[in-house]
Amino acid sequence: MKSLKERILRDGKCFPGGILKVDSFINHQMDPILMKSIAVEFVRRFASEPINKIITVEASGIAPAIMVGYLLELPVVFAKKKRPSTMENMLSTTVFSFTKNRSYEICVSRDYLGPGDKVLFIDDFLANGNAAKGILDLAKQAGAEVAGMGFIIEKAFQHGGEELRNMGIHVESLAVIESLDNCEIRFKQQ
Amino acid sequence: MKSLKERILRDGKCFPGGILKVDSFINHQMDPILMKSIAVEFVRRFASEPINKIITVEASGIAPAIMVGYLLELPVVFAKKKRPSTMENMLSTTVFSFTKNRSYEICVSRDYLGPGDKVLFIDDFLANGNAAKGILDLAKQAGAEVAGMGFIIEKAFQHGGEELRNMGIHVESLAVIESLDNCEIRFKQQ
Repeated sequence: MKSLKERILRDGKCFPGGILKVDSFINHQMDPILMKSIAVEFVRRFASEPINKIITVEASGIAPAIMVGYLLELPVVFAKKKRPSTMENMLSTTVFSFTKNRSYEICVSRDYLGPGDKVLFIDDFLANGNAAKGILDLAKQAGAEVAGMGFIIEKAFQHGGEELRNMGIHVESLAVIESLDNCEIRFKQQ
Repeated sequence: MKSLKERILRDGKCFPGGILKVDSFINHQMDPILMKSIAVEFVRRFASEPINKIITVEASGIAPAIMVGYLLELPVVFAKKKRPSTMENMLSTTVFSFTKNRSYEICVSRDYLGPGDKVLFIDDFLANGNAAKGILDLAKQAGAEVAGMGFIIEKAFQHGGEELRNMGIHVESLAVIESLDNCEIRFKQQ
């Protein structure tokens, strides 16, 4: 997605250790017009998949997910990072975050993820793929099927995408970063 | 907002202690078509306010906020509930949650909230108004102005709305609940 890559080059900030900050337009301040264009591109790339629901994880996945849900007129479920006091009937799994160097729990109610659901998972970043694997586990527990996984930015050098694709999952990333070495953003040729 | 109130009556679930769960269409599973209608109504109600940015708090505020930002073509900033390891230049404040009976910190980068900003705060619920007061504090620290505050659902019996309006803030709530006594949802006549 050309406009996204141009925006990343213009407004993304690179830090030592393979860190890319896109805080000014994706995950702290968000550009809703760009989010809509991103959602249109996800719709195009998953056009062949039967999908009845969008799923994401709070918080940065919510904006692109709600836009995809809006375009496809499908419900959007976001997995929560803390078990809410008032939620029953919960499925949960543990996700390890390399960025934060700690584990956290994500959970979803069985009321909104169940047998027969064919979900499209949408998130902002794909790095090691641990959040994505958490969603796969929740879907498995629920008896639901993951029809595809769409990410705004994939850090190919952290290999989560490779793993997911090797599992046979239809993965689409709108900007794939091959390397952030020397704080230079280099996209994979697609 | 008639369609919202009808949806709350149809799909909202009431629990002892003044708890209203709208998990099936607002804050766990979300209905994006309803979110867009909600955003249109916010645009209408704040038509007279000069606004250059939408602000919200993760996670349930993000969906309605991004829809309002999309309609108005304005950037959307979400305050984070945990200080991210990679964020500098931060403003933070403490919010007490009655629902969860604990305090948490919300923070926003000075890069995305500053002098000259006239922000519209959007959130799913207004109860005691503590998150809203946290946003007022962040705006004050940043030198920004809060031009209005829009909530999907206000629990009038918890008086946050009264307090905010007494402070002279333009508050709009699309469904105002007067009482949840005996687990019966009673809307305020508007």
